[in-house]
Formats: sequence, C-alpha cells, structure tokens
Amino acid sequence: MEKTKVGIIGLGTVGSGVARLLLDHGDRTARHAGRVLWLEKAVVRDLNKPRDCELPDGVLTDDVDEVIDHPEIKVVCQLMGGVDRAREVMLRTLESGKDVVTANKALLAEHGPELFDKARELGRSIAFEASVAGGIPIVANLSQCLSANQVTSLHGILNGTSNFILDKMHTEGAPYADVVAEAQRLGYAEADPAMDVDGTDAAQKLAILAQLAFGARLDWRDIPRSGIDQVDLVDVGYAQEMGYRIKLLAVADLKDGHLDCEVNPALVRAGSPLGKVGGPFNALLANGDAVGPLFFHGQGAGQMPTASAVVADLIDTAVGRTAITFRTLGLWSEDLRGVDQGDFAASTGKRYVRVMVEDHPGVLAEVTGAFGEQGISIASVLQKEPLEAGGVVPLVIMTHAASEAATDNACTKIAALPSCRAEPTKMWVRD
Amino acid sequence: MEKTKVGIIGLGTVGSGVARLLLDHGDRTARHAGRVLWLEKAVVRDLNKPRDCELPDGVLTDDVDEVIDHPEIKVVCQLMGGVDRAREVMLRTLESGKDVVTANKALLAEHGPELFDKARELGRSIAFEASVAGGIPIVANLSQCLSANQVTSLHGILNGTSNFILDKMHTEGAPYADVVAEAQRLGYAEADPAMDVDGTDAAQKLAILAQLAFGARLDWRDIPRSGIDQVDLVDVGYAQEMGYRIKLLAVADLKDGHLDCEVNPALVRAGSPLGKVGGPFNALLANGDAVGPLFFHGQGAGQMPTASAVVADLIDTAVGRTAITFRTLGLWSEDLRGVDQGDFAASTGKRYVRVMVEDHPGVLAEVTGAFGEQGISIASVLQKEPLEAGGVVPLVIMTHAASEAATDNACTKIAALPSCRAEPTKMWVRD
Repeated sequence: MEKTKVGIIGLGTVGSGVARLLLDHGDRTARHAGRVLWLEKAVVRDLNKPRDCELPDGVLTDDVDEVIDHPEIKVVCQLMGGVDRAREVMLRTLESGKDVVTANKALLAEHGPELFDKARELGRSIAFEASVAGGIPIVANLSQCLSANQVTSLHGILNGTSNFILDKMHTEGAPYADVVAEAQRLGYAEADPAMDVDGTDAAQKLAILAQLAFGARLDWRDIPRSGIDQVDLVDVGYAQEMGYRIKLLAVADLKDGHLDCEVNPALVRAGSPLGKVGGPFNALLANGDAVGPLFFHGQGAGQMPTASAVVADLIDTAVGRTAITFRTLGLWSEDLRGVDQGDFAASTGKRYVRVMVEDHPGVLAEVTGAFGEQGISIASVLQKEPLEAGGVVPLVIMTHAASEAATDNACTKIAALPSCRAEPTKMWVRD
Repeated sequence: MEKTKVGIIGLGTVGSGVARLLLDHGDRTARHAGRVLWLEKAVVRDLNKPRDCELPDGVLTDDVDEVIDHPEIKVVCQLMGGVDRAREVMLRTLESGKDVVTANKALLAEHGPELFDKARELGRSIAFEASVAGGIPIVANLSQCLSANQVTSLHGILNGTSNFILDKMHTEGAPYADVVAEAQRLGYAEADPAMDVDGTDAAQKLAILAQLAFGARLDWRDIPRSGIDQVDLVDVGYAQEMGYRIKLLAVADLKDGHLDCEVNPALVRAGSPLGKVGGPFNALLANGDAVGPLFFHGQGAGQMPTASAVVADLIDTAVGRTAITFRTLGLWSEDLRGVDQGDFAASTGKRYVRVMVEDHPGVLAEVTGAFGEQGISIASVLQKEPLEAGGVVPLVIMTHAASEAATDNACTKIAALPSCRAEPTKMWVRD
C-alpha cells in the first residue's frame, strides 16, 4: 500500500491526539485514504517534556527544519499556537512544496489572505477544518455540501468555554466569577480566559465562516462584539423566566446584499436547537435558500474531537480532495467577489432591555415612552416588585424588531431619566 | 469558463428542482465548481405533462437514449423512481462512460453491490447524497468528515412522513388514521404511504448508512423492523407522561464487533436532540470514537432540499472529488471487510412494555414476576386506574437493560396469564 509521509509541528494536546490516531489506527486511515499515513517526524520545543503519546524512535525532534526540509514529507500538520512564528513556519512549509493542515484559527483570521495567496501561487493547499468548531465538520459542510445554496444566515455557538459558563449560570444560578473558576478547574477555560469570554475567539471563527459561506473578507476586529464577562446573573434569571437562554451567539445574516455580523450574548428560545446546546458543546444553525435550515451539534474543542478534524483533513489532502476544493473555491482571493459587511447600526432584530428604576408612579410610562419615540414597539414587559420598600425596580422589556441605532437612542434617553439608576442592559433576542 | 454538460433522467419534483438550480443559479455552481454545469438534456416520460420548471428549447426529450448516447454529457442525474428499469438505465449510463448522481435509495438498497462493482470496473462513479436524509449531507459526513473515527453508533430519524405523523399524535393527541389523512392532504405522505410508515424506507436508508459507516453489507430485508402503523395513541400518552417521545428510530450500534441494527418505534427522551425533532424533519446522531457525538438535523425530503444534495453531488462529480472518494472507499466491494450484523435476539436495551390486565389483587405481582424470572429488573411502573369499575387496567413497565429474547419470553408468559386481556405492547427505550 502506498505511503504518504506526514510531519507534525507542535505536539501539544491536539498534536498528541493526531499522533495517536495515526500510530494506533492506521487501519482506518488506510481504509479512507487508500494509503498509509506515515508519521515521519514530530517537532516539539522541549524534547524532555513528558507527553501524551509514545512515538517510535527517530520521530521526535526539536528542529522544525527536519520537517520543512524533509524531502519525503508531503503533508504537514501545523499545530503550533500563536500567530507570528506560526505564519513564518507555514510560509516556509508551503515554499518547501508541502501541503498544510492547521487548527490555528487566529493565524487564519490574521493572515488568511496572505497565506492562501501564497499557497495558490505555489500550487499547494491549506486545510483548516479544525480551526472552527473542533470536531464538527463545519468547514467541509459549508464549502462542499452546501455548494448548491446561497447561504442566507449562520447562527453559531462557537466558543465552548463561554457556553459552559453561561449554561452553568442558568442551571445552577451561580455568578459569573464562580463559574469561571470552576471552568478553569475542569480544564474548559484557560488560566487567562480573556480571548474566550470576551468574544475574540468567536469573532475570529465567524470571520472564517463568513469567508466560506459568503465570500466576505472581514477583519475580525471589525465584527461588532461583546463577551459574556458582561452578563449579569439577574438577566440570566429573567431570560429563563421568559423561556429563553442567554448564549454567546456568532451571527452572520445576509440582508439586502449585505452581511450583518456580530458576536454578542443573545437570548435564544430555551426549546430551540441553539437554546438547548449545553456544557462546552458547539453548534451551528445554517440556512441555505435550497436546503432550508441545517443544524450541526458536537464537541467544539478537546483533544480527540479536534484531532478527528485534523486527521480528516490529512486524509482529504493525501487523496487529493483538498487540492481540488482549494483550487476551485479561491478562498480569500481578490477574485472571489463576496458580500460586504453591512452597517451594524442599521441591523434590526428583537431586543431585551433591562432598566433599573426608582419605584414611583409614571416611571413605566417614561421608559416605554422612550421606545415609542424611536418607533420601537414593545412585545412584552416584566416588572418585578422591589426587593425592599422604595427600592430599585427592574423593568425588563422585550421589543419587536428594532434597529441597533434606534435601541441605542432609546437607551440613552432612558439612562438620562432622573429615575434611572444604571445604564440599561441590552441584548439581542434571536428566536 | 469550462463547461460540464449534464443530463437529467426524470423530471419529477426533485428533477425539476435540480433543473431550476442549474438554470437559475449558474453563478453559485460556477463558484463552487470552477466551471459551468450546463443542463443539456432532460428526459421525461410524457412531453405534454405540465411541469414545475421552464426549460430552454431542445433540452426536453422523452428518449432516454438522447442522454445515454450523448457524446458530450459527462454526468447524469438519474432521478427516476422504481427499481428494475432504474437499474437497467443506470447500468447503460455507466457503460456509456458517464458518471451518475442518484437519489434512488431503493435502487441502491437492492442493487448497490452490482452497480458499484460495475462503476468501478468501468472507472466511473456513483454519487448518492440525496438517497438518505434528503438535504442533510449525511453521506459526505460519514464517508469523508468522520474518516478518522471508528463510528460506534448511528441513531437516526430517517423517515419524515413517520416523524410528522408521530409528532402530530404527540402534540394534538390525534389518532394514527386521522393524522395519516392530514399528512396526505399536506403532501407529506403518499396516497399509499405503506413504505414510509411500515419501516421499509428507513431500513433501506439504514442499510446504506451501515455500509458507509461500518462497511456492513446488509440486505435491508434482514434488518428487524416495524412501523408506526402499530403505534397506539395510548402509548403516545404514557410515553409523554414519562418524559419521552415515540420516534421511528433507525439504529445501528457496534457491539463486540457486531452490528445491532433495527428500525422500530422507540421511546427517546423528550428533551434530547432526537426527541425534539419535530414535523417532517430528519436527524442523525452519530457517535465516533474520536469525535464523540455529532448531531445533524434538517429537511429529509422535499423538492429543494433534495435538489440541494443532488447538485452538491453534481459539483463534487464535475470537479473530481467524487471519483477520488468512490475509488478510495470501495463501497459495497468484496474487498471491504466490514462488520457483520449481530443476533438481534441478543441485543439489549431498556424496554417499554404495556400490558392490559384485569384489575384484581395480585396481578401486578404476576406481571412483574414474569420479568423477574427472566432476570429483567424493572426501572419504573405506571399503573392507571381503570376507566370503569372492574375494567381493564393498563400497566406500563419500564425495564433496565434487557435482551430482546428475554423480553419476548416475559411477554409470552404475561400474554398467557388469565388476567391478561391483550398481547403486550413493547418498544425500545433509547436515552
């Protein structure tokens, strides 16, 4: 049986998982690739660090050039983190005539256009299934399976850490800080979880999906976003009372030829597919104009789910499918005329707004009046009794479709009311 | 831009949808295929029948040879129903040097081995995404995206008609016959819905999936199955009371190197992904040993969802991806050493059993004793008051894991009790 020699650069959690699949389960890669995927070299920074897989003699090295300059290695799994050094290594790998498989979404979100252009120029390919939603094959589904469709919207839960935290806040009524600490203990959150909980990670993934589904060339920094570090437990409770869950939702909606993109905590119906995504899982609801709604749910991170996506890419690359897809789609190329990002202020949808007001006559009229002035109609109001006499009262308002700009105007007006005690909290409601 | 000429044989609902995608949305097929998919000929039985799409002059014909013998047509969508004539046309199409895309699951379930062998022998390919679960790209996901995994189980809702009917029985408490009539009015059920509601359709699809995921070469007739025409409204009510929904579930579980396959109405938890599949939707929960659980949900039938899958196959075939996959996987070949079907009588799981008994002292002990004799322990019992004094009482028993054979023995014993008034009803419980 034919052999395709493979190199791995970076033998951390995912890299070790990939090595184990190649070493321990050669039969299944042989069945699906019609050839042996042979692990020839694996590059690590520190040869003495204990690791999660046993490698045959001669495979381990701390010299990246042993992979890049290896004349027989055809495909390289580039699984190192970071951006600058990863970019340099990927460019050198492509220049040495090798195809690349990567899980590094930050690298693609920062340097996708340059890297893809270079690969095309050199007749090489880059596969990146594992860069978005870990084990869920979203990249393959968007780039191949939905190719007869105009995708009209993507609504995704793309950050497992955030979903784990929000889910715990809902099910246990525990405040944000406590749940973050638990997530860190369980290994679902990094010691510094900033990129996960502030929406950066999800925005980088959304930028990649927007390129795949819409040909949109977005800088992830231009995607309006906020994180779950802003989510207050009281809103979790009110959302729940109204039959919703708060989720960190990555949204790309095609409207009038433009793409409304954002990453924000949003209310989704508790019983809906996205509302039921629990724990550290990821999910994507994609709408296509022919296929209708398609929903995918699975593990968005973790060693073996991510390794599953990397090895599927390795097989696709080894057999030649990736080369075809890569050449045909022209991702991140100047030739790919995709849609542009719309004006976020003009994007419309239902809103959840919570206002903390003094409990005196007329205050409900003042608050709802501010919405009326902006032409926003109100779908429902939840007014709670104050916890103590004369105390502050939460007013929870669910609007019908309203633009971001109009909602902002109403909230500014409300914040300036003498009876208003704090900046209003607002979130999107996605049914 | 390069042109790939396409022929369609059969211009019914799905065929018309495919024609519309090719004629009206050439831009998107061009983007994803890097070439134009040009509809050259479409074969119908009756030229005078009104149809759902407008075709350019010269495309329509009632002579299948105009496609088969056409020197420039490279790919043929074979969308005619039935088996014998469809087999003959597919063989002739392959022999004429053309690749085939089909949605005909009955044809593949009956003649897959012969057709795939013939295609391999001729260096041609057969693509069949649309044959299972309509618009949900299950075939591509199992044959490509999960290729690093040993799939360990598939639990699917693969017949939309059955799911629509069961869902209505749950939500409206309407009896089977009434809902079937409604499904026929809405176009979700054929005038003769036998193949949908008796489990045949789902078993044929499961046989195809078992080949893809496990290399198992099953005759669909050997898959133990029953349909929803057996489901009584009283069981729908009791299932609901216990937090379950009844679904027509197609199951393939890998156990000790054998495949337990069956298609039967089963109880699944109301809040689980499969339990929440409503209306005519399809879904699949696949477990892989690396990726863990992956869930897919979408439209399993209908004109445009199915056409979406057919055109995705057309693109994959035109660009050359299908040829690679087809060659590599060796589906339905003698070389593909897959798992065998297990002994259904030995397969184990939780059971729902309903017994109708006379209401007299000691009857509960007699019934539960029959389970005890078979070594089956009982998880819960629901005993209802009789509707009239001295009337018949339903006893609903949920067991812990029990084998099919042991459950059958217990039910035979119970049926022979003097106090038992009817054959016990039993269903699998899939958590």
